[in-house]
Amino acid sequence: MISNFNIEPLNHKLEDEILLKIDSKTKPVGSLGKLEQLATQIALIQNTTHPKIENPHILVFASDHGIVEEGVSAYPQEVTAQMVLNFLEGGAAINVFARQHSLKLKVIDAGVKPKLPFHPNLIEHKIGEGTRNFLNGPAMTEEQCAFAIQKGSELIKELSDDGCNTIGLGEMGIGNTSSASLIMSVLCELSVEECVGRGAGIDDSGFKRKIEVLKKAKGLYSIDESNPIGVLSTYGGFEIVMMTGAYLAAAEHKMVVLVDGFIATSAFLVAYKMNPKVLGYAIFTHVSDESGHGKMLDYLRSKPLIDLGMRLGEGTGCAVAFPLVKSAVLFLNEMSSFESANVSNKTE
Amino acid sequence: MISNFNIEPLNHKLEDEILLKIDSKTKPVGSLGKLEQLATQIALIQNTTHPKIENPHILVFASDHGIVEEGVSAYPQEVTAQMVLNFLEGGAAINVFARQHSLKLKVIDAGVKPKLPFHPNLIEHKIGEGTRNFLNGPAMTEEQCAFAIQKGSELIKELSDDGCNTIGLGEMGIGNTSSASLIMSVLCELSVEECVGRGAGIDDSGFKRKIEVLKKAKGLYSIDESNPIGVLSTYGGFEIVMMTGAYLAAAEHKMVVLVDGFIATSAFLVAYKMNPKVLGYAIFTHVSDESGHGKMLDYLRSKPLIDLGMRLGEGTGCAVAFPLVKSAVLFLNEMSSFESANVSNKTE
Repeated sequence: MISNFNIEPLNHKLEDEILLKIDSKTKPVGSLGKLEQLATQIALIQNTTHPKIENPHILVFASDHGIVEEGVSAYPQEVTAQMVLNFLEGGAAINVFARQHSLKLKVIDAGVKPKLPFHPNLIEHKIGEGTRNFLNGPAMTEEQCAFAIQKGSELIKELSDDGCNTIGLGEMGIGNTSSASLIMSVLCELSVEECVGRGAGIDDSGFKRKIEVLKKAKGLYSIDESNPIGVLSTYGGFEIVMMTGAYLAAAEHKMVVLVDGFIATSAFLVAYKMNPKVLGYAIFTHVSDESGHGKMLDYLRSKPLIDLGMRLGEGTGCAVAFPLVKSAVLFLNEMSSFESANVSNKTE
Repeated sequence: MISNFNIEPLNHKLEDEILLKIDSKTKPVGSLGKLEQLATQIALIQNTTHPKIENPHILVFASDHGIVEEGVSAYPQEVTAQMVLNFLEGGAAINVFARQHSLKLKVIDAGVKPKLPFHPNLIEHKIGEGTRNFLNGPAMTEEQCAFAIQKGSELIKELSDDGCNTIGLGEMGIGNTSSASLIMSVLCELSVEECVGRGAGIDDSGFKRKIEVLKKAKGLYSIDESNPIGVLSTYGGFEIVMMTGAYLAAAEHKMVVLVDGFIATSAFLVAYKMNPKVLGYAIFTHVSDESGHGKMLDYLRSKPLIDLGMRLGEGTGCAVAFPLVKSAVLFLNEMSSFESANVSNKTE
């Protein structure tokens, strides 16, 4: 059984006061563009005219995927575990960007195939030793799916209790663009071809094979967009499921939720289908170069903050765009008003 | 006489080594997108595979504009001086973002009309008490123009001597979108209408008046794109001229040059027309919501890092985008390689 998530819709009571505060700042009205919208959204999430980003974290969920045995990825499966060790050693892209912005980084073993050594920054929540190849049956059982959602949700509750109010979710899992593509294809009701990209950089023949494998997998099951949990357990990865639970819980705890790229957004899409109110808490940090991501954002009627042609995962989009989110909060709190700075306002 | 600027073209000797270093990092090839191009550009500027951002500064140049008496701005002229005081008190948008990213901020009085009080962070280089209304004759003399270019250049030399290798230029000057529009119109050979926007937010009747005034001003002088200094002294502001000198000197000193929005780019455009090699040192940080800016970037065949619909000036685009530039340098220096992290590379 999937627990209920009790997400409150954003409270717009303070909206006029927030907009008045923004327009009193010493700048032409509207001249901070998207930063003004961000400041408003964050103030509404926190239900205050003085929002704060506190104890921000990046969580990277890692897991392996049975579908990799069909040759759908440019990298061998052992890279998932190797990259987890790289995260723990501090040498991956997400480490660099998290350090740059003082974002705390936690790595979660959601279902990496090999047993990983103990490390203080590694959270062990292995749901299984990788998922099943979904050409041979659903990727996981419904019990595993429910358990992973619960674990993702518990992680967020702990962080919220620790005073964290801003979260970015990232992932690592060789083969997980295949899962994300099928989740997108079913939930957005788009053809497999419209959803599949080259992932970590598969070559032409591999790309053709990936499309064939995913079309075959789509034909094997009769599930539709009305059953997001069914889609998740059939095609998901353990990291994706845990992220879905984490998104829902983060909105329940009124956190600012930073959404990363293609795979992270596929997990968010499931959360959105389960409870559309999650959208009010989400900031889409970037649009990935992975071709399906822009279409997912269109489906969610959302615009990304930045477009740098990145397609790395790990939460790197969240981390790289984080200072823009912080800029929004800072201008709202720190800029003078026309009155306080004795600056003449627009001539009417 | 305008001093010569001796700008070296970027030295591409290390390019292969830089690209090899980027491709050895634990990530799919190309997956950091634009950050990889930035890292390469900065490494080439500094002619090293280990580039560093050192002692970065934002310089905000302020000046008044005679054309304001024609009613081309939404704000009264006294706002220029009032905003300079706001910068010095730390309450403007640029102060907030510069503090956020530990960017040192200097404010230069290039030609603000009133005398400004002494302040340790204010640099006094007043070329005149505002420019002349260019409906009544050129905005400044050729001597003033040459002197402002020299002053802008000297400021950069001092910063370079202090170990600053990265610079962002911003501006404040009520009326300066009018100057920028005409500079753009002549240098890019576009009609006035294609270059004029609403600046700080002028209303419909004011916008109509602004276009009429600028068309009239364009008809008064017969200068063309082959004479950038003539364009600058006829339509420029003292802040714009000083920025032109600063851009050229920054490239001469092999600095990383962050270019802000519409007005900053008009000053850059003059620099580019004087010496196209300046382009190799430039990073266009954002595209402004001021309508002409995108067309200027097209003319320069350059893409902006971010597009947040900002149109505030002051160097705010440089400051807000600065962490992305830093991310580029950091990943190049700090990420592990496949070899050092024992991560398997792509299967061939």
